[in-house]
Amino acid sequence: MADYKLILVMLMSVILPFCNADWDGSRPRTGPLSQLDWTVQPATDADEHVEGSTWAVLVAGSNGYDNYRHQADVCHAYQILKKGGLKDENIVVFMFDDIAFNKLNPRKGVIINNPRGHDVYAGVPKDYTGKDLTAENLFAVILGDKSLVKGGSGKVVDSGPNDRIFIYYTDHGGPGILGLPDDKLLYAKDLIDVLKKKHKAGTYKEMVIYVEACDSGSIFEGLLPDNMNIYVQTASNATEDSYGAYCPKDFGTLPFKDHPPPREYRTCLGDLFSVSWMEDSETHNLKHESIEQQYQKVKTRTSGASHVMEYGTKEIHEEKVYLYQGFNPSFKSNLAETTMRMNAIDQREADILFLWAMYKSSPKNSDQRTEIMKQIRETMAQRRHVDDSISMIGKVLFETGNANSVLNSVRESGLPVVDDWDCLKSMVKTFEMHCGKLTQYGMKHTRAFANMCNNGVTSFEMEEACMTVCSK
Amino acid sequence: MADYKLILVMLMSVILPFCNADWDGSRPRTGPLSQLDWTVQPATDADEHVEGSTWAVLVAGSNGYDNYRHQADVCHAYQILKKGGLKDENIVVFMFDDIAFNKLNPRKGVIINNPRGHDVYAGVPKDYTGKDLTAENLFAVILGDKSLVKGGSGKVVDSGPNDRIFIYYTDHGGPGILGLPDDKLLYAKDLIDVLKKKHKAGTYKEMVIYVEACDSGSIFEGLLPDNMNIYVQTASNATEDSYGAYCPKDFGTLPFKDHPPPREYRTCLGDLFSVSWMEDSETHNLKHESIEQQYQKVKTRTSGASHVMEYGTKEIHEEKVYLYQGFNPSFKSNLAETTMRMNAIDQREADILFLWAMYKSSPKNSDQRTEIMKQIRETMAQRRHVDDSISMIGKVLFETGNANSVLNSVRESGLPVVDDWDCLKSMVKTFEMHCGKLTQYGMKHTRAFANMCNNGVTSFEMEEACMTVCSK
Repeated sequence: MADYKLILVMLMSVILPFCNADWDGSRPRTGPLSQLDWTVQPATDADEHVEGSTWAVLVAGSNGYDNYRHQADVCHAYQILKKGGLKDENIVVFMFDDIAFNKLNPRKGVIINNPRGHDVYAGVPKDYTGKDLTAENLFAVILGDKSLVKGGSGKVVDSGPNDRIFIYYTDHGGPGILGLPDDKLLYAKDLIDVLKKKHKAGTYKEMVIYVEACDSGSIFEGLLPDNMNIYVQTASNATEDSYGAYCPKDFGTLPFKDHPPPREYRTCLGDLFSVSWMEDSETHNLKHESIEQQYQKVKTRTSGASHVMEYGTKEIHEEKVYLYQGFNPSFKSNLAETTMRMNAIDQREADILFLWAMYKSSPKNSDQRTEIMKQIRETMAQRRHVDDSISMIGKVLFETGNANSVLNSVRESGLPVVDDWDCLKSMVKTFEMHCGKLTQYGMKHTRAFANMCNNGVTSFEMEEACMTVCSK
Repeated sequence: MADYKLILVMLMSVILPFCNADWDGSRPRTGPLSQLDWTVQPATDADEHVEGSTWAVLVAGSNGYDNYRHQADVCHAYQILKKGGLKDENIVVFMFDDIAFNKLNPRKGVIINNPRGHDVYAGVPKDYTGKDLTAENLFAVILGDKSLVKGGSGKVVDSGPNDRIFIYYTDHGGPGILGLPDDKLLYAKDLIDVLKKKHKAGTYKEMVIYVEACDSGSIFEGLLPDNMNIYVQTASNATEDSYGAYCPKDFGTLPFKDHPPPREYRTCLGDLFSVSWMEDSETHNLKHESIEQQYQKVKTRTSGASHVMEYGTKEIHEEKVYLYQGFNPSFKSNLAETTMRMNAIDQREADILFLWAMYKSSPKNSDQRTEIMKQIRETMAQRRHVDDSISMIGKVLFETGNANSVLNSVRESGLPVVDDWDCLKSMVKTFEMHCGKLTQYGMKHTRAFANMCNNGVTSFEMEEACMTVCSK
């Protein structure tokens, strides 16, 4: 009899985590806390008193169906916070909103963030979508300055000195930059300046920021002071790519099991760091789990792909997660850890792998197939154009044999990508003027531009080099 | 007084190696052995009796001024053998012969192989030049079969069972292949078959082969039996590039001192493995030095760039070098070791670095400069076309995410690049038919084609994939 019990416990320990990971974001929970308002005084299982509200800003910085995963991440994050008790007026969502009803989306009006997951799109506030998804609006929202907002819902983080803020950003990135729609860039220095301003205004108690992007550590390394009560987790360190997860079966290159989306999907459903923290949050009692515990588990699950990092006021990680993500008593598991390792793909390869998935699932000898092959070829050519142009500009500016190592050199740990951010912006602008848009893929090259600045290249020299290399 | 002596000895030990390295290939040596004929019975400093003659085959497989270094290597090798006492009728030279009087050559009619070196071109027999520099002629020459020779001097290795043969090949290469002019390829299997035939014919006692090329180890690994009395040294192992030496100042990427050519040269004067063995031969008594001693010194000098390898009948390396390269008593040095480490460049980058050197030395805003930049851009585009086409063909043939690792996978040590060489040739042919010439640069990709064969890709599948990817 005792043996049976043991088997049952073991079985439950295997099954439960999946049950929890598989919740339906669109279906209202019936738990006692689902309608509770605790943004001013969160309801807790021990009824402890927490002063202040929790605010959240969720940002999916990309657009395009091949970037499905970023908006899926953000929708999923919204559902977790919402179920955790945060009110819609305290959650500001930035998403382009071109996925759910995209002609390529096999389930119209539905977004999933897990192969077995249900819709996470329903109910997500459309605060800043399409052309309103800008760095300026994001900064205005964080600062709580309605007057600076252009378009969108006008919702801002109207926080006070006792409030906590949770910011989550997921997209492509590059050294010192995060992506925005239409090949626009958000520069690290500008974000840090906004956070400093917010700190100076004294309108928050503590802030936790999670960022998923390639080179995401570079947004904070050497830039974010540790005395601003802001704690950051990034998907990757300052010099590596981050990874897409739940991708079609033959995408991945890591030595772990594939967890592909349902057959009809050709795209990745999430990102590895992102689904790791979210699935961890969904399977734990967030009043018992500290941010550090979450960090350790997410770090382990993401290892093999990228290195999850912490920046800023590290002591904050001793706090419990519910202070930033809310609390839902159904989110707990004594037995389960969602630590399942899985195959993942370098975010920079995701767009081209998406095209390949489209190609392989298209009928042989069809016009559609020919068209997709053309797109693959053009995408490759566009990448090569950016890669080669930058490499050639480097060779014009520096010693031929040494140029690549100058462009790729990584500054000492603890230093930001560049000191003169205006120089970096100007280099990128000059490049784009002569050689065309840097593009989502080309964001990987900002370190090259930064190193031009770090090596004293003048704007005149850069202008001349770009004209030489990129003139037809 | 004793101090002065010590200083003098130290000074000599620094100066002497350079004096020896700096000999003038065109100026007849006046030493007692320079006119000696010892091809049947070499004259030796101890008058020991060596049965049989020494034959040599020297091959520079490339053409084009940007490949200056290969023909410089071969001319230099000729001068060493000639001064070592080998007769012209025993030295067969393959070189395209488009360097000495090339319009880009700053010293007309002169080729140098060392920054301080004098002409090595004068006197070099023009056995197989231009269009006569073919694999078929090389094989006929090695086999000693005049009837198979087309064009050229008709000179062949007419060796007997007591003769020794020295073969030296320098060029670009790739997995399982060596380069020939006009983007033709020499396949390892064909060379090995010729050696086997020669062995079967019993027309040599022992053979020593030195090969400088990228991936040169792959010409012999898993292919050359160790019981054919053939000993081989290659500049690199089966999976790495080999390096050009004495290149313009800002070419190199190794952490060693530059040893650039005279100011008026924009090209590399030699190759690292090649100049290492030749400068070693020139500064040692080759009756005292064993092949293994030479191997060890060359290996040390080349380390940091590539790994010099040995294949075949290794015991032969215990023999003295003079048995293959002749003996000149002025080639010796008790004090000197030509072991000077130096900067070097990956052979695959040499053509583009040559163009950059031309660009940087051309007048600003000149038509010439614009034209060179155009050539750089076209060369880059051509490379990208080859790289991308092969990568895309791989993705059509294999699982998308896995394709690159299939194409790049290296077989177990001791196995040849491919088992079915006809398949490899057919893959390359099909590729070239649809996607254009593989080119000198593209030789790096033969492993990809080999791995298609190793993974059972049929010619029909390859044909279809090439058409899909490369059709306009």
